[in-house]
Amino acid sequence: MTAPQETAPTAGMVVIGNEILSGKIVDTNSPYLCRELNFLGIPLLRLYTIPDDFSLIGKTVREFSECFTWVFTSGGIGPTHDDLTIPAIAAGFDVPVVSHTVLEETIRAHYGDRLTEDHLLMARVPEGAELIDTEGLNYPQVIFRNIFILPGVPQLFQFKFNAIKERFRGVPIALREIYLKADEGRVAGCLREVDERFDGVLIGSYPSFFRKDYSLRVTIEGRSAERVDAALSELESLLRNMDAAIVRIA
Amino acid sequence: MTAPQETAPTAGMVVIGNEILSGKIVDTNSPYLCRELNFLGIPLLRLYTIPDDFSLIGKTVREFSECFTWVFTSGGIGPTHDDLTIPAIAAGFDVPVVSHTVLEETIRAHYGDRLTEDHLLMARVPEGAELIDTEGLNYPQVIFRNIFILPGVPQLFQFKFNAIKERFRGVPIALREIYLKADEGRVAGCLREVDERFDGVLIGSYPSFFRKDYSLRVTIEGRSAERVDAALSELESLLRNMDAAIVRIA
Repeated sequence: MTAPQETAPTAGMVVIGNEILSGKIVDTNSPYLCRELNFLGIPLLRLYTIPDDFSLIGKTVREFSECFTWVFTSGGIGPTHDDLTIPAIAAGFDVPVVSHTVLEETIRAHYGDRLTEDHLLMARVPEGAELIDTEGLNYPQVIFRNIFILPGVPQLFQFKFNAIKERFRGVPIALREIYLKADEGRVAGCLREVDERFDGVLIGSYPSFFRKDYSLRVTIEGRSAERVDAALSELESLLRNMDAAIVRIA
Repeated sequence: MTAPQETAPTAGMVVIGNEILSGKIVDTNSPYLCRELNFLGIPLLRLYTIPDDFSLIGKTVREFSECFTWVFTSGGIGPTHDDLTIPAIAAGFDVPVVSHTVLEETIRAHYGDRLTEDHLLMARVPEGAELIDTEGLNYPQVIFRNIFILPGVPQLFQFKFNAIKERFRGVPIALREIYLKADEGRVAGCLREVDERFDGVLIGSYPSFFRKDYSLRVTIEGRSAERVDAALSELESLLRNMDAAIVRIA
């Protein structure tokens, strides 16, 4: 893995869990995070889904931590034998696992008489981890270095990310779209031309073969809304010149 | 990346596309492949989603090719400037990109008078690639070494995988499930005990905090249906001994 060329903040995500890879559970956390980070203007540059494998978790999260501004992990932080994320990350960074006093108190207060030794496993953090208060939620968010260690349960993942997301807000990415009834191979030349001519603007092309309303969705995006609009208008006129059927511009 | 310990066939998947990472398009190909490979008895051990980045695609696919029996890629094989998968894989293996005669003929026949130079980009393969006939589909499947290069469009991805999937059929994975109304931390000890006692059987534990009907789904899986059933029955009796409320066994 090589570090990305971006100078603005970047993100990587590591999804941890056999259940995703075996198709028993569909990962909804990564589509959610992809969308949310994009709204916030943070490019998510890698998304890696790996099994409950102690050394692989540690190695992968450490590599991601070195390559991206922020790393988000999903899954593996409960009280059962397959919850390896915390000790694996600690091992990946050669730091011990410690019980965090605040987490321990939160867990003791939450479970009361029903507390088991296994519940207390959820108080573990890699040494040096900090807590972010997530108001309204009974359990704070653990951050270790630049790694946000999030739960796999989708509702909790979303609640927690939502509680911390403002810290990630960057320059928004402007997105415009052209929906066409056109063959991708016919308009490829126009798309390439505009993609090359407008630095900092990215043109994407996504065919749909089974829709009535359009057959091609073209996206134009970048940090500068002005440049994006200029590229859109250039692309629109190139497409009209070749009689490509524009269904809708959004 | 280190090679997995499995001696049976294994798989890895590389999803290629900015549109997935930016959340513009939800990746439905990987959940589909996860589920299908699991039905076929093939463990998918890694799922990596990466951007349209030429050198990263080549490097990642080559690494996966060395680590897993089969590699599946999704996306980046159309005729536009952001379709880099074929030349990137070729570069990753230090082989030239060539135009495949059969693909070229297929494309010429399909587009007829409407053919453009860009359409012919879809005839490119890494030198040494072969074609698998996918009966009923007008475009065969490209395989290069152990890499199946699949399209990103979900319907095409599924059609094509479906046409080739019988070659991957292995020893099926037996799966049983226990649905409980129980706190994960309370039953963690039972789960750990059975997981440790039954070699080759994997116990998974997936809490749901927002369901009426159950709060914990426990999965028991392995290659030997007998061992899985033995583990299930052991786990069931441990859970009943501690008065955990079993809602359903599936």
